[in-house]
Amino acid sequence: MDATAPGPADFPVVGMVGGGQLARMTHQAAIALGVRFRLLADSPTDSAAQVVRDVVVGDHRDLSVLRAFAAGCDVLTFDHEHVPTAHLEALEADGVVVRPGASALVHAQDKATMREHLGKVGVPVPDWGRAYTAADVADFARAAGGPVVVKTTRGGYDGRGVRVVHGPDEVEDWLGAGVELMVEELVPFTRELAVLVARSPSGQAVVYPVVESVQVDGVCREVYAPAPGLAEDHALAAQVAALRIAQALEVTGVMAVELFDTPEGVLVNELAMRPHNTGHWTIDGSVTSQFEQHLRAVLDLPLGSPSALAPHTVMVNVLGGDLPDLYPGFLHCLARDPGLHVHVYGKSARPGRKLGHVTVVGSDLADLQERARHAAAYLRGDIDG
Amino acid sequence: MDATAPGPADFPVVGMVGGGQLARMTHQAAIALGVRFRLLADSPTDSAAQVVRDVVVGDHRDLSVLRAFAAGCDVLTFDHEHVPTAHLEALEADGVVVRPGASALVHAQDKATMREHLGKVGVPVPDWGRAYTAADVADFARAAGGPVVVKTTRGGYDGRGVRVVHGPDEVEDWLGAGVELMVEELVPFTRELAVLVARSPSGQAVVYPVVESVQVDGVCREVYAPAPGLAEDHALAAQVAALRIAQALEVTGVMAVELFDTPEGVLVNELAMRPHNTGHWTIDGSVTSQFEQHLRAVLDLPLGSPSALAPHTVMVNVLGGDLPDLYPGFLHCLARDPGLHVHVYGKSARPGRKLGHVTVVGSDLADLQERARHAAAYLRGDIDG
Repeated sequence: MDATAPGPADFPVVGMVGGGQLARMTHQAAIALGVRFRLLADSPTDSAAQVVRDVVVGDHRDLSVLRAFAAGCDVLTFDHEHVPTAHLEALEADGVVVRPGASALVHAQDKATMREHLGKVGVPVPDWGRAYTAADVADFARAAGGPVVVKTTRGGYDGRGVRVVHGPDEVEDWLGAGVELMVEELVPFTRELAVLVARSPSGQAVVYPVVESVQVDGVCREVYAPAPGLAEDHALAAQVAALRIAQALEVTGVMAVELFDTPEGVLVNELAMRPHNTGHWTIDGSVTSQFEQHLRAVLDLPLGSPSALAPHTVMVNVLGGDLPDLYPGFLHCLARDPGLHVHVYGKSARPGRKLGHVTVVGSDLADLQERARHAAAYLRGDIDG
Repeated sequence: MDATAPGPADFPVVGMVGGGQLARMTHQAAIALGVRFRLLADSPTDSAAQVVRDVVVGDHRDLSVLRAFAAGCDVLTFDHEHVPTAHLEALEADGVVVRPGASALVHAQDKATMREHLGKVGVPVPDWGRAYTAADVADFARAAGGPVVVKTTRGGYDGRGVRVVHGPDEVEDWLGAGVELMVEELVPFTRELAVLVARSPSGQAVVYPVVESVQVDGVCREVYAPAPGLAEDHALAAQVAALRIAQALEVTGVMAVELFDTPEGVLVNELAMRPHNTGHWTIDGSVTSQFEQHLRAVLDLPLGSPSALAPHTVMVNVLGGDLPDLYPGFLHCLARDPGLHVHVYGKSARPGRKLGHVTVVGSDLADLQERARHAAAYLRGDIDG
């Protein structure tokens, strides 16, 4: 407990490293719970730093900055996965309560470590291997008989650090730079799925409905909750995989598991140990938002219901487009759709940047998709009138 | 637009006067909309000041403070009704956009002015009169043939400034102090109702379902939305009255109308021109929360749907009780009820003080009442185990 943090002293202080939109939306949940929320942001203009009272500006790659920030917090958690693993271990050695812990988080930071562990846990994953040399990539591609996927094991997100290639010449830059790589089969998936699980230090876990995630160039564009027409056994397999991973890795907090759906079953692709874009629908579409759930989990409070409020929820990201400003589009979008939920992140518009999202909740999936897509397209400037 | 406010410059700056829980919850809504939210608080430890980034500490009774605060805001609005009417008029003369405006807000600040206006608008109200002398009170009580209600016309809330009396000797202190008073019939109501309306400067208005409000000693304890078993004609009369008042007074923003339900019909009792305790259920129980609606209305954005998400929503206030701290009760309450929504205001516990509220949403009214009452009672310390 930190006497200097604003708010009643009996409420814990949760420190979040990273000032992006996930922290911004976590702050909304913290306000309701009365949890005192402290932010370590790169800049005072970060998305979350614009709206949080208790902000420290500093570099999350600097252990001394992390130590000073953690000193006032009851729990340390994260808006992103970019804090070096060694720093997390050092904080834990100091006695800082880090959730998720370093030994869990490394599986979201390092894709090869994650895949190795998932294989041991018995969760289905694509065929893959580490790639140290051009020959490793070439051999894997030859065996696959077609294009393969090469990924940097660390640092990638939103499509960065992932390439579909026919041979090692297409990743020469990465090989030359000595970046750690892995190579995997190009899974002939029918669609991408995601499932959100929350787990507390006490071991309580809840799992949300499996959603469909529509990705373009590695960036999430749309989410349908639940995944329309998903076979029950595939949904169950995805939820079981998420719960099994959460337990095996002793995850604390929210974890998003991204999967490929194939005719033969689901395969786990990626993990994120934090609130996730595929879970934004939960703010308006479920009993307990992923952001509140994350706070409850890292504080070892009992978890909330993950139930959906309606048969369908559709979330569409608002990506930076032709318009410099989102606000002028509010007039049309809010007038057209009184049921529209708009969430903007306070970020300046750049093409392709995630600036916000819109959500609609109801019973007619096609209607919801049309409404959410129209609003997102209008806000970014794709539609004239 | 104010370049110094955090966030993208195309988003308007809404300045709210007053740092209570209403401002705190409005900030949550502002974060989603991307609206830049600035607070004028009495103290940095005020409920909202604990969680808002952009806080000015100053006295809302000081016109120079108000002027400096308003200078950076596109719209000025209020968490309470305590800003002197003359100051509001002065700000409007300066060109500040004040919503609701001084000429509307005075009806929420001065009960006698409100009653006079409602009479002209044709909205049903209790029998009443201004009381300047002991004789005025005595005459009214004699005519009523029983106890009557005496109210101070200004400054009362949560039961303060309201007394049920048999004669003028029970308000000698008020009469002696020269406080402006009114006297009214003690309405033999069957229950108290409230209805929330939002109106924009363009004249768009939406009205929420009529709710039942359970008051103890003038303080709201519980709200059931919609009011269970309310006759359709009474519900319609309440909604029509609210819409008519909003239009007649040219209200901008959210207004709560409190009414008495009687076998003969509904009577309007009080007005509040801001988000209101009887509207807290809308955060979890309706498509558009009253806080988002208030922001949309004062910004002249199209209004959101006021529809309920489920057949019943029950809100119970958490009042200060035996426990100094609310947080220890979270463990039991959240474990007992995964569907419980807890909202705490960051205020130190004092007996009877509004420290937070809990909300549950569903289809079984009795079950929801039991759950919400249990949680509120446990958090305040009325239940041992």
